[in-house]
Amino acid sequence: MTKRNEVRYELYYWPGIQGRGEFVRLAFEEADVPYVDVARLPRAEGGGVHAMQELLDGVRGLALPPFAPPFLRVGDLVIAQTAAILLYLGPRLGLVPDDEAGRLGAHQLQLTIADLIGEVHDTHHPIATSLYYEDQKREAKLRARAFVGERMPKFLGYFERVLARDDSRREPYLVGAALSYVDLSLFQVVAGLRYAFPRAMARLEPAIPRTVAVHDRIAARPRIAAYLASARRLPFNEEGIFRRYPELDVEPEQGA
Amino acid sequence: MTKRNEVRYELYYWPGIQGRGEFVRLAFEEADVPYVDVARLPRAEGGGVHAMQELLDGVRGLALPPFAPPFLRVGDLVIAQTAAILLYLGPRLGLVPDDEAGRLGAHQLQLTIADLIGEVHDTHHPIATSLYYEDQKREAKLRARAFVGERMPKFLGYFERVLARDDSRREPYLVGAALSYVDLSLFQVVAGLRYAFPRAMARLEPAIPRTVAVHDRIAARPRIAAYLASARRLPFNEEGIFRRYPELDVEPEQGA
Repeated sequence: MTKRNEVRYELYYWPGIQGRGEFVRLAFEEADVPYVDVARLPRAEGGGVHAMQELLDGVRGLALPPFAPPFLRVGDLVIAQTAAILLYLGPRLGLVPDDEAGRLGAHQLQLTIADLIGEVHDTHHPIATSLYYEDQKREAKLRARAFVGERMPKFLGYFERVLARDDSRREPYLVGAALSYVDLSLFQVVAGLRYAFPRAMARLEPAIPRTVAVHDRIAARPRIAAYLASARRLPFNEEGIFRRYPELDVEPEQGA
Repeated sequence: MTKRNEVRYELYYWPGIQGRGEFVRLAFEEADVPYVDVARLPRAEGGGVHAMQELLDGVRGLALPPFAPPFLRVGDLVIAQTAAILLYLGPRLGLVPDDEAGRLGAHQLQLTIADLIGEVHDTHHPIATSLYYEDQKREAKLRARAFVGERMPKFLGYFERVLARDDSRREPYLVGAALSYVDLSLFQVVAGLRYAFPRAMARLEPAIPRTVAVHDRIAARPRIAAYLASARRLPFNEEGIFRRYPELDVEPEQGA
């Protein structure tokens, strides 16, 4: 039996946003496994952005510095890239099937969610991350129209198709017969898209009932519900990936 | 001992471009393991884009349809997402360290390369994949300036830093003591960026000597050299991810 509580999991991510770190937080919360959200700790307790930046800058002895947050530190091991963190945590948190095909399937879906998240980010930053939104607003409107009209239905339609592939299941999950970390991530995608693009999601949701059902079932799970009601769940805001800019929640063009 | 030649590896990718499929092709070529590049076979032999599209549309019995090419079929297993394909192939082709930390490190770097590749794609398609380049050329110039001035140096500087972390090694590789699939991918990144942004790369290369050295050493490996000289290596072109549009190979702004 694994004494999982003896492992100290340290998550490093920007302290003020859900962002990509939220996919990792949701896995820990559902598994009820303690984790330290390092950059949200006070600096006096070894926390803050400073602690994260030190590792990004490459402290002595770090075998492989991360390119960007989020990253997870477990003893001497530092793992960057959200999907790689979940690949590592999945079996340890009991949030992925045991067989190789199931694990690869979960990972492949998580990488597709990562692609979707990258495109959501680019709706408000289509030109440069280093520029303010206000300085690329014109281009953001164009990109958001394509996202809302084409990409969002394509991605969510894909997940819906994956959920529908065996409709004999009363409560389908994306991989295998039970909940996995990918379902938690799909919950986050739906929640985020509802925040950022409420009108577009209201139009799309009737076409993706299984996806919406996964969202609702996960929101109702006791540990997730408790997490969402806690101060640990940061609110969505306009510094994160999902941003509510009403001018981007556009009507797709006719015929798009 | 694995009788690896008994496994039939089928790669599915667009037949006319290097694109994301090339990272997988390079791994097979270096390992000297046969693979079928399905969509490049004649339709009479079960090939063509048609064969790829059938799997994307979800043939009966496919446990998990891919979202997009490339994907690899090995018996009943279908794996999509370039980095997940290499995660699966790495140990089987002998192109990754044996230990978990080394494998996670390789995968994490490959995911960072995937992020870079996504940004290269968006230099010519910053608004919508569904629009022609010509219809987003103005925005492409803006995005390319940010890519060339900020992102390309940041990404390549990161890989250079990873290569430099132990400068006692005469011929450094990105992960562990030997060649891995990530080094092959870094070769492809350098080759592609040289094709797409020759002036920007000429300016940047003096600052990333170890990265350039990895490229050169890999290009000189006998199997890779033979592959590059063969008809199996598709030429770079303006349908792929790395495109030579001279108007995008811009001078970064002063002070950028």
